[in-house]
Amino acid sequence: MAGTYAPTPRTTPTRAPQRVGYDREAVHRVLDEAVVCHVGFALEGEPVVLPQLHVRVEDRLYLHGSTGARALLRARDTGLPVCVTVTLLDGLVLARSAFHHSVNYRCVVAHGLAEVVDDAQEKAAALSALVEAVAPGRSSGTRPASRKELAATTVLRLALREVSLKVRSGPPGDDPEDLDLPHWAGVLPLTTSAGTPEPDPAARRPVDVPEHVVGWHRPGHA
Amino acid sequence: MAGTYAPTPRTTPTRAPQRVGYDREAVHRVLDEAVVCHVGFALEGEPVVLPQLHVRVEDRLYLHGSTGARALLRARDTGLPVCVTVTLLDGLVLARSAFHHSVNYRCVVAHGLAEVVDDAQEKAAALSALVEAVAPGRSSGTRPASRKELAATTVLRLALREVSLKVRSGPPGDDPEDLDLPHWAGVLPLTTSAGTPEPDPAARRPVDVPEHVVGWHRPGHA
Repeated sequence: MAGTYAPTPRTTPTRAPQRVGYDREAVHRVLDEAVVCHVGFALEGEPVVLPQLHVRVEDRLYLHGSTGARALLRARDTGLPVCVTVTLLDGLVLARSAFHHSVNYRCVVAHGLAEVVDDAQEKAAALSALVEAVAPGRSSGTRPASRKELAATTVLRLALREVSLKVRSGPPGDDPEDLDLPHWAGVLPLTTSAGTPEPDPAARRPVDVPEHVVGWHRPGHA
Repeated sequence: MAGTYAPTPRTTPTRAPQRVGYDREAVHRVLDEAVVCHVGFALEGEPVVLPQLHVRVEDRLYLHGSTGARALLRARDTGLPVCVTVTLLDGLVLARSAFHHSVNYRCVVAHGLAEVVDDAQEKAAALSALVEAVAPGRSSGTRPASRKELAATTVLRLALREVSLKVRSGPPGDDPEDLDLPHWAGVLPLTTSAGTPEPDPAARRPVDVPEHVVGWHRPGHA
């Protein structure tokens, strides 16, 4: 497997080319760290963007939803052209000039045809991987999906082929003549972290909070 | 001004109607709390989704970008049909069954025509508001945009008319017959927080970290 995704017209930037890359492992790290993606598609010719859970397995991205959802019904016939975007916000870039304010981020954009997974084994594996993507270690601590639940869920597969990664990192890029302004400038890092687990009030018996909940963190983070 | 946005076919859910609302203030709180949105539009008939900073001013959402960006060139002529989606991830919903795993979230979806702001006063006000949206209090601690910088930036305005808010909150919704399973179930809350400010290494003089950086928080949060 090549170490980079091949650029296409859609994944070639018209601006800031220094921020865009195609490294496969770097793309995968962003996809794996993020909990949600934003899926864009056209419905009656109009753009729609919805948040979704996702999981990457090798060079495939899996999404899922109710079998009755409009977009998934559409995908059933011919596949659904989608743009899946995953954004991790790493910090606020506070410059001396309003113009150079920015954010530090890592953003993967994947284009392609989302196809319904019909193979029962691939579907079950994808749904199990989706649970693992939310909380690594979780899938062994749950009841697997029943046949009825599997039937009620549609899983979509997007082959990762047309993919790019855009990154902004580091300090503000103020113009040299602004460096003497009396304003503070720098980066305010942002992180997402887990709070105290809240047990289900419907629980009928005490169950210890498992390690995959207490020690929850995203891949690549301590 | 009415207290709710009027539902339309595009903002009327086909599933889970109990999760969808149109309350104007609730919509505004989500838009104001989020740092980034995801903007979807069609380019050569194909969906594109990109992250953007945004700011809400009354019932208008402002976006901005380089005047040379493809989508903004398109918007210049006739306006650009967009779907702007803002998602706040509040927690992981860990059920006893794989099927009922979910996330707690608040998600605003706004449809409409994004139009280029030509009025110089509205444009300058929107850019100032965009800086304030990143860090409240910040716009008075920066050099305002020059005429050249204003010309290099395109500001888009989306009137908030066709808008919905989808919310999932609370504990898992396991089936009654699963409540006796030996698995822990509950919610793991997620929060985004700021770390230690990182001063620009290019700074030529010491400047105290201002209160709007030290005390940074999102509207609605302590």
